[in-house]
Amino acid sequence: MKTCYTLITLCLLPFALLTACDRPGETTMNENQTEQARYAIALHGGAGVISRDLDEEVRRQYVDGLDEALALGVEMLENGAEALDVVEQVIRILEDNPLFNAGRGAVMTNEEKFELDASIMDGRDLSGGAVTGVTTVRHPISLARHVKSGSRHILFAAEGAERFADETGVERVDPSYFYTERRHRQLLRAQGRDEVILDHSGDEESMLPDAGADSDKMGTVGVAVLDRNGNLAAGTSTGGMTNKRFGRVGDSPLLGAGTYANNETCAISSTGTGEEFIRHAVAFQISAIMEYTGAGLNEAADQVINGKLREGDGGIIGVSHTGEIAMVFNSPGMFRAAADASGRYEVSIWDEPIIMRE
Amino acid sequence: MKTCYTLITLCLLPFALLTACDRPGETTMNENQTEQARYAIALHGGAGVISRDLDEEVRRQYVDGLDEALALGVEMLENGAEALDVVEQVIRILEDNPLFNAGRGAVMTNEEKFELDASIMDGRDLSGGAVTGVTTVRHPISLARHVKSGSRHILFAAEGAERFADETGVERVDPSYFYTERRHRQLLRAQGRDEVILDHSGDEESMLPDAGADSDKMGTVGVAVLDRNGNLAAGTSTGGMTNKRFGRVGDSPLLGAGTYANNETCAISSTGTGEEFIRHAVAFQISAIMEYTGAGLNEAADQVINGKLREGDGGIIGVSHTGEIAMVFNSPGMFRAAADASGRYEVSIWDEPIIMRE
Repeated sequence: MKTCYTLITLCLLPFALLTACDRPGETTMNENQTEQARYAIALHGGAGVISRDLDEEVRRQYVDGLDEALALGVEMLENGAEALDVVEQVIRILEDNPLFNAGRGAVMTNEEKFELDASIMDGRDLSGGAVTGVTTVRHPISLARHVKSGSRHILFAAEGAERFADETGVERVDPSYFYTERRHRQLLRAQGRDEVILDHSGDEESMLPDAGADSDKMGTVGVAVLDRNGNLAAGTSTGGMTNKRFGRVGDSPLLGAGTYANNETCAISSTGTGEEFIRHAVAFQISAIMEYTGAGLNEAADQVINGKLREGDGGIIGVSHTGEIAMVFNSPGMFRAAADASGRYEVSIWDEPIIMRE
Repeated sequence: MKTCYTLITLCLLPFALLTACDRPGETTMNENQTEQARYAIALHGGAGVISRDLDEEVRRQYVDGLDEALALGVEMLENGAEALDVVEQVIRILEDNPLFNAGRGAVMTNEEKFELDASIMDGRDLSGGAVTGVTTVRHPISLARHVKSGSRHILFAAEGAERFADETGVERVDPSYFYTERRHRQLLRAQGRDEVILDHSGDEESMLPDAGADSDKMGTVGVAVLDRNGNLAAGTSTGGMTNKRFGRVGDSPLLGAGTYANNETCAISSTGTGEEFIRHAVAFQISAIMEYTGAGLNEAADQVINGKLREGDGGIIGVSHTGEIAMVFNSPGMFRAAADASGRYEVSIWDEPIIMRE
């Protein structure tokens, strides 16, 4: 009997080895299965000078918005959803929330128009899609995903992005859909000072209760996810800068600057002064530091945000291939939230979490 | 007398020290002055499948075009010109040459139009400017430079870039200026095959003598320069891909992907399958490998071009802060040229230099 088992074992050994060697290029499974069952998600709703005198009701609305988005992400991840799907769906929720400068809450350009940007990236194969300057698409993140899956290109601009949208089933809206009184007042103030302003940057007046949920932030939304299969994805969506010039492209639609994801390192979404994030290729640089120096995610993010950028430029949220979460910023505050499979669940604006469950 | 000299020396010492400590953040001078007097320049006119059966006369035209551009760069550098000026002027020469896919020789989009992209970056302060989808600007590289110097933004797209051009003195042309019979035939062939083709990629028919100077290349032009003050700059200009979709943005106008310059590391311009250069943030990644691993320019470029990209994707030209020159590509050929203060002067298409002087 013992001989028989030995023979069977010997016969099966080659198959076991073959299975172990299957698909060497893919990282859907890791050596450490338990490690990979650890999902993680981090998201942001913009960074900047967010006053601690923020009206209580307004603060609650922001926290609720972040909590709602995070809860959806966690539910999807618990149910085994793919990183890319989680990124898209959570960003859609944030795009629909008029508090955040993306989708419905987009700020106005100097011509009183709306130009929306978004990008999404898949850490499995470094594929990605992005759009800049779209004007009639309710969920720019979904259009970016269509570019990723349905085009040989990565980035479409302006009218070219609208034309691409015509061939997809993405929901279209009249540009007036993006109009809010609050954003119009914000534009008029910016024009009075001849400034471009990042949503939530030094605009005291807009924090008054009658201005609604508008404090001093840099507005963008972004999500980074590690799913239960060990795959990473990231996405970013924005309405840009108040009073920005027509046709300006910031970092949000640029893979490497605003968004990056690589299964070997991390997934990152940036928020802040876009031009600085482009110059320093912030999202990619964090991944490169991890790859080339062996640093962990927080260490790498700290080197870039606090070592390369200027004080006040903004920050990033990210998750690493091991499930490490980073939310690093050099501005007074960043609307953010994070959760993982260990039960960590938190929503924050300034230093200390406002909602926290372990 | 000796005491007197000693006293004078002691009195002057603090000033000498102050002068030595002057402007610590700038790298206009290096510890090793001789090293920095070594200027270096590298340029490209596209990479791809360039047949060795290329008609002799056509080959000569390409070599002459590269030689003319390099000679201008060397003359300017010998006369102490700044890196940024050399990059702009040499690219303008290449943009005016209808052989190269930039400016006058731009390829056509699938709508029989021309959309030009360019970017420029200054290694001193990582400032840069870029435009994508311009249609009436004779020298897109000069418009990119105006964005760098005259705007708080880095990148303008399409109509927004045209509007920005209206406020500058850049030379405007009717879009028909970019039209050449050769590019139109190239488009019709690409449409017949339903392909987007990189200029000079697998298009045998266009190498016939009657097709003029059109072989299988990936078309872009780019220049990287180290000037005698130790400053680095890089720039890239392109007409994109034949039969590309309206509004597609490739790597050429993206700092980090198509162009990068940092006085601490290197200046790089890319050419090839733009989407792959975006995914891998090729120009920035080479700089990052130098910064984070201490690798030299050629070693870093080899890691990215031959270790990250797919065979045939294209290549880069670059110069390092020490004057090292790199021209690394993984396609059969790349139109390129390089020179430095030691007297090196070469123009190449395939492996061995066609013009070489030491």
